[in-house]
Amino acid sequence: MTKWVYTFGGGRAEGDGALKEILGAKGAGLAEMSALGLPVPPGFTISTEICRHFLATEGAFPAELERQVAAALDGIAKVAGHQFGDAEHPLLVSVRSGAAVSMPGMMDTVLNLGLNDETVEGLAQVSDDRRFAFDSYRRFIQMYGDVVLGLDHSVFEERLEDYKLERGFTLDTDLDAGDWQAVCDLFKALVAEELEAPFPQTPHEQLWGAISAVIRSWNNPRAKAYRRINSLPDGGGTAVTVQAMVFGNLGETSATGVAFTRHPSTGEKILWGEYLPNAQGEDVVSGMRTPQDLTEFARCETGSELPSMETAMPAVFAEFRAVCDALEKHHRDVLDLEFTVERGRLWMLQARPAKRTIHAALKTAVDMAHEGLITRAEAVARIEPRTLEQLLHPTIDPESGGDIFARGLPASPGAASGTVVFTSEEAEIARTQGRKVILVRVETSPEDVHGMHAARGILTTRGGMTSHAAVVARGMGKPCVSGAGTIRVDFHAGTMSAGGRTIHRGDTITIDGGTGQVLLGAVPLREPELSGAFAELMEWADTFRVLKIRTNVDTPSDARAARGFGAEGIGLCRTEHMFFDARRIVAVREMILAETRSTRAEALAKLLPMQRSDFASLFEIMSGLPVTIRLLDPPLHEFLPKGEAEIAELASVMGISPAKIRASTHALSEANPMLGHRGVRLAISFPEIVEMQARAILEAALDVADQTGTPVDLEIMVPLIASKSELDLVNSHIRAAESLVRKIHGRAPSYQLGTMIELPRAALAAGELAKSATFFSFGTNDLTQTTFGISRDDAATYLNTYLAKGILPHDPFASIDREGVGELIRIACDRGRATRPDLKLGVCGEHGGDPASIHFFAEINLDYVSCSPFRVPVARLAAAQAALQNRDRADFSFPLRTPVTDPTAR
Amino acid sequence: MTKWVYTFGGGRAEGDGALKEILGAKGAGLAEMSALGLPVPPGFTISTEICRHFLATEGAFPAELERQVAAALDGIAKVAGHQFGDAEHPLLVSVRSGAAVSMPGMMDTVLNLGLNDETVEGLAQVSDDRRFAFDSYRRFIQMYGDVVLGLDHSVFEERLEDYKLERGFTLDTDLDAGDWQAVCDLFKALVAEELEAPFPQTPHEQLWGAISAVIRSWNNPRAKAYRRINSLPDGGGTAVTVQAMVFGNLGETSATGVAFTRHPSTGEKILWGEYLPNAQGEDVVSGMRTPQDLTEFARCETGSELPSMETAMPAVFAEFRAVCDALEKHHRDVLDLEFTVERGRLWMLQARPAKRTIHAALKTAVDMAHEGLITRAEAVARIEPRTLEQLLHPTIDPESGGDIFARGLPASPGAASGTVVFTSEEAEIARTQGRKVILVRVETSPEDVHGMHAARGILTTRGGMTSHAAVVARGMGKPCVSGAGTIRVDFHAGTMSAGGRTIHRGDTITIDGGTGQVLLGAVPLREPELSGAFAELMEWADTFRVLKIRTNVDTPSDARAARGFGAEGIGLCRTEHMFFDARRIVAVREMILAETRSTRAEALAKLLPMQRSDFASLFEIMSGLPVTIRLLDPPLHEFLPKGEAEIAELASVMGISPAKIRASTHALSEANPMLGHRGVRLAISFPEIVEMQARAILEAALDVADQTGTPVDLEIMVPLIASKSELDLVNSHIRAAESLVRKIHGRAPSYQLGTMIELPRAALAAGELAKSATFFSFGTNDLTQTTFGISRDDAATYLNTYLAKGILPHDPFASIDREGVGELIRIACDRGRATRPDLKLGVCGEHGGDPASIHFFAEINLDYVSCSPFRVPVARLAAAQAALQNRDRADFSFPLRTPVTDPTAR
Repeated sequence: MTKWVYTFGGGRAEGDGALKEILGAKGAGLAEMSALGLPVPPGFTISTEICRHFLATEGAFPAELERQVAAALDGIAKVAGHQFGDAEHPLLVSVRSGAAVSMPGMMDTVLNLGLNDETVEGLAQVSDDRRFAFDSYRRFIQMYGDVVLGLDHSVFEERLEDYKLERGFTLDTDLDAGDWQAVCDLFKALVAEELEAPFPQTPHEQLWGAISAVIRSWNNPRAKAYRRINSLPDGGGTAVTVQAMVFGNLGETSATGVAFTRHPSTGEKILWGEYLPNAQGEDVVSGMRTPQDLTEFARCETGSELPSMETAMPAVFAEFRAVCDALEKHHRDVLDLEFTVERGRLWMLQARPAKRTIHAALKTAVDMAHEGLITRAEAVARIEPRTLEQLLHPTIDPESGGDIFARGLPASPGAASGTVVFTSEEAEIARTQGRKVILVRVETSPEDVHGMHAARGILTTRGGMTSHAAVVARGMGKPCVSGAGTIRVDFHAGTMSAGGRTIHRGDTITIDGGTGQVLLGAVPLREPELSGAFAELMEWADTFRVLKIRTNVDTPSDARAARGFGAEGIGLCRTEHMFFDARRIVAVREMILAETRSTRAEALAKLLPMQRSDFASLFEIMSGLPVTIRLLDPPLHEFLPKGEAEIAELASVMGISPAKIRASTHALSEANPMLGHRGVRLAISFPEIVEMQARAILEAALDVADQTGTPVDLEIMVPLIASKSELDLVNSHIRAAESLVRKIHGRAPSYQLGTMIELPRAALAAGELAKSATFFSFGTNDLTQTTFGISRDDAATYLNTYLAKGILPHDPFASIDREGVGELIRIACDRGRATRPDLKLGVCGEHGGDPASIHFFAEINLDYVSCSPFRVPVARLAAAQAALQNRDRADFSFPLRTPVTDPTAR
Repeated sequence: MTKWVYTFGGGRAEGDGALKEILGAKGAGLAEMSALGLPVPPGFTISTEICRHFLATEGAFPAELERQVAAALDGIAKVAGHQFGDAEHPLLVSVRSGAAVSMPGMMDTVLNLGLNDETVEGLAQVSDDRRFAFDSYRRFIQMYGDVVLGLDHSVFEERLEDYKLERGFTLDTDLDAGDWQAVCDLFKALVAEELEAPFPQTPHEQLWGAISAVIRSWNNPRAKAYRRINSLPDGGGTAVTVQAMVFGNLGETSATGVAFTRHPSTGEKILWGEYLPNAQGEDVVSGMRTPQDLTEFARCETGSELPSMETAMPAVFAEFRAVCDALEKHHRDVLDLEFTVERGRLWMLQARPAKRTIHAALKTAVDMAHEGLITRAEAVARIEPRTLEQLLHPTIDPESGGDIFARGLPASPGAASGTVVFTSEEAEIARTQGRKVILVRVETSPEDVHGMHAARGILTTRGGMTSHAAVVARGMGKPCVSGAGTIRVDFHAGTMSAGGRTIHRGDTITIDGGTGQVLLGAVPLREPELSGAFAELMEWADTFRVLKIRTNVDTPSDARAARGFGAEGIGLCRTEHMFFDARRIVAVREMILAETRSTRAEALAKLLPMQRSDFASLFEIMSGLPVTIRLLDPPLHEFLPKGEAEIAELASVMGISPAKIRASTHALSEANPMLGHRGVRLAISFPEIVEMQARAILEAALDVADQTGTPVDLEIMVPLIASKSELDLVNSHIRAAESLVRKIHGRAPSYQLGTMIELPRAALAAGELAKSATFFSFGTNDLTQTTFGISRDDAATYLNTYLAKGILPHDPFASIDREGVGELIRIACDRGRATRPDLKLGVCGEHGGDPASIHFFAEINLDYVSCSPFRVPVARLAAAQAALQNRDRADFSFPLRTPVTDPTAR
């Protein structure tokens, strides 16, 4: 008989932390804590398999499940000492979702389940708090009504507001037990009226209703959107955890809180968190009440007047601190904990790897390795490479003296400028239009995730460091200022005001999530300094890494930045980017519009010294490292003037008619420029361009070698090759330039000739190409375009539909398509190496900076990847992780437990 | 020691007909005839290897060659009985080119070599004809001056004209021996003056000069152009044949002529040819004198008053007829022979497979098989499939009563209309502009080949059925009328006149190369009737063929034509072509511009009955045969109105603003439409279009099955697939339509679901795709575009350069690229069949009608190819030849000697 229900509690558990796929992250965590003997309210988890069965059968449960649930309920009753549905001493339960990978707030939860007109009296008796009992009951009716019965929670809110208005109450605390009882009756009447059926009174019916609703919430729109954004599979399903309720709102000896075993922003080794006395858990998370500090140390730091938990309930706090220490040692990671104190007794409700800033992730990883808690390899493996980009993001320049509009909490680091929008819909629209916006909300909810994703930064006026906005923004690596309470937002007017000043929708502001500042206008930003932990971890990463990391740069400033970030050479220098310079473009256009070889030669002669000095700077900066120069690639019409003004200007400079320029532009225009007259095809039509470029490259290399005393490690690369004969013809022109250089200077530098592999045919012909090329550089952007037959410029119109309908697992331009494009790369590597075993193999498409793609490139043993300067640290770390994973795969003795944990991004 | 020189003559030969690669076609033919004991003037052939050596070393000969040539010259002298350079009894020789594949007229020749001031006197003595001797000498100086010394032959012509003018002569026959001697002196003076060196007098120097010049002519521009047009390799080189001269111009017992062993236009089994008494060979070929008939039968037919050779020199004619019979039996093919009669003695100068019309090729192949001379398989193998297209070309409708402007010879069959041009340059320009032209020349020369290639038909006012124009046009399969002597051309004025009427450049005429008529204007043409020989040969071909031949059609008339040509089903029906119909396009545009699903549904509802009736007609015509319908493929913007007038019209019909239509057009426009929102991507964005099309297809199939009693063999094909999930999603929409049809009609027809393979990724993913698809159809046009990254629309600007520089061996859009595109097809077949062994595999790109590509498709065991209706017979024959070749390869017992001879096209 299949086991679908796993019990925990009372110092025992049927599952453990390894069973996330079956029990969900939450269920597995509870089982793990329970098995460790920690105080966990008893409960059971229904396996994810039931979710898949339920969804596949459109709402059916296996017959046997009911018996297993009943047995587990009996088990809870035994540990808790009271019975589900018992009128005198009722057991209340929570029913929660839980996927293998946590999706915070995305699915539904029902609390206080088991209450009805009978058991509420028992609860009042047992708790000796009638007000608490009816308050709980009305909360339950509202939540159940919303989640299970499908009534909007606002209809309950309105009924409550009416009740308070009638009686002149302002705050919930103005209501006494009798009031709450009356509200319960109003709520029940509301349900009966809306649904034409009474509110379900049997706990059994309530339970199965809640289980079904929680399972169904796996497919609600925001859960699906979250999975899409986070590249999570749709097929896993959620587990359902049913657990005895404990109450933090039973008076002043009760409390509830959340804690991190180390500081989630800085990574400092201090217990850090927030709690609220006499409150339920959602009061902390929702940001409705401002929480109090956990420790006395933190209270002093924040200057809060409210007592810390350490002071208010020292014994329970001491027990909690011991639990924290034990859990961190056990899990060997920073944990995010939820707890409740019920009348002086500590209950642990959740333990999971803590979301933390990249600063904290780096510091804790490095610290834990120093503490001996984890190995250096584990430290390296724990950092999600993409998050390093945040480190490289700018912060506000303190010298800039920006005009501070308001202050909030430094909820997620980094600074960003953008125009103000007040809804997630506006943010999404702005993104599609390429505008940068800051999303301003009173507080965020899971419905805002798509808008947060679209915005450059998030500002909220309510909520703490653990509010929804703060947690999600940290996960996304976006700047966030939360709880900026002095700001008042008027959604109707589209304005926000503070200190007598008003900002309108569309005005520009700057936020700094590292300091909590909100500033007027676009404030100058400062490049980040990298922490010691970053440097140390990168150093460790480099000891594991096999893949070399180069960079794609065209300018000296980018080249210097990239070398600073650890680039080991230039993998792609696009010579044409130099052509667009205002002082050069006229000569470029003269060259294109030349009608004879001799006028073309004149124009090229003007370009020669410019190109030579460009190359010389790059060679100097990269001294000692390889530099790959790609010959001219884009179609010539890209360089021609576009508007009438530009055409007129060029006409007067060149002394030809505007009509002639328009005619040339027309003649050069193409139906499908991506597949047109570009790359090596230009070199074959206009060999004189190749000869000029080759001469500039070779002469620059000679100069720099003379100046620096180090020969340039020079690679000349030909784009858009489809066959060996193209490469050979271009090489003959390069050799002609080499002869000329040798004639003029008495010598010529050595160089390697290579080809881009960016057409399927080149991949297939790699065996032939390797006879003439000593290196291949995969142009994965173009290779993806041609392999899929998708124009990247036009894909927006349908690629989102493809992702939404699950036809593509991810955007193949962002992360390499292993099955299609990847196979062509594999074929090219195999065939190329068969011809030339020491063939150098690299990637210069944008996938070179994508961690998932880098894993693939490491797997197939490429020599290097090349990416934009800011991606270089990302690539270094991803390459190290790939090497560790490959080592792990090859040699099972390696003790890495979680090869690529991603503690921060989800 | 390497043998470079091969002698022949005197009933012996060192080589034979099999050595074409070494001796060239001409040299091998002479050796073969000589070995058979036929009367061949003695000579020797220098191997093609010397040409390759000479060109590679920029003009050097191996040291040993001179000795071999000297020995061979001695051999000639022994057989001929007189010595090279001997003053009293001089041996004169011709020096001719000869490639492995004949390139008529493209390379250079020198005749009468060996004459100088001394030997000319000897020749006068021996021939007893002083006038002949000096005429020969002046011809030699002129030809040598042109070919070897690089003087334009017109400078000699001018000097001769001056001489005649001074003395009041009109015709060459007015000059006597003394005049010719004086002309020789003038010519020698001219050479000395132009080159500052005397005309070479030693025969040895003359010989080596001529050999070098002939070799160099391998790379003259027209030879290179000819090889490019005919897809011949550049690397082979020419052999050089040096042969004793014989003279057909030594009085009335001498003659020269050309003959075909069967009629080259009709294929009738009669000896057919032309001769000229007292003339040299070039007089016949050049068309300067009107030749006489060879046989009395032909003379009666043509009604010529000049005596036939059969009557004029009966003994020699009888000998010649016996030689013809022997040669045809020996070669088992129709031969094209050149001969000279020198003072009553017959000499055979050349024998090669005869160029013939496709009518003649079919008839002779079928006749020879009936005669038992060749097998049926050989008959099938001998026809170049492409030439069948000529048969299908229209002829002038005799009922049309066109206005006849002039008559000429029916030199190459088929009729064509076009505007008149008078130069090959104009013809070329017109082709690039897409205009159809008829090239009109007095006579054509090898310099005109490119213009003939560009024109739809050729008209000459001089020359016979074996003139340059006639031979080349037949080879090209183009209509040609030659020798229309009543027409007078005025190149300066750009006009031609006949019978008092004048046609100007740019006027339209029609020529009928089957009747020799030249008509005014564009005359209605009639579809051809196919001969019995064609039908019989195609029947034989079908017995060998394995590959099925389907057709790409969208209209009932094309479908009927294709079925008439033997199509075995429809391999591609492009549903969108039906959308462009004037009565439908508005509904299509409404569908595209619809802003809601419901307005789109309304527009689709209008299209449904139209599509249904289109499909029904095709199913009816193809009853019993498979029909593949492709779902909508092109990007939607293709259907939108282009000009302001069209936009205004649509706006008024749809009741929306022109601005809205322009905005939609703009929104739908794409940077690279070829890689854009089309094919299956449309189906995924607009599933309602798929559902409409699927319903129309299925309902039409139901209707036709009911009417005809035969179920429709229905295949639905999805274009531009890159992954299985796309196919599955589209299939779910087709299934929805199927359910609807089943609901409405109580049943639905069965169908197969398949995919086009036209993206590299689809080829790689074929194993997965075959799980959902029961057939693949390779869209080789798009697959070539994406594999090469070449837009067919834009390729013109550089593809010609690629072909000219030899970077591509042929246009990959015309003939499949075996290495790249072919490998992807192979991969897809292997993977697809591994998943589904009975997977149906076909091709529906244009390569489906290209013989070379069909060979490839047969090699990899595809099930069918699909091509345009007029290519169906071509494909049937090519498929049969491919099957024979494969059988030949698998089983060496098959006696096919020349698997794909191409006797007609070169």
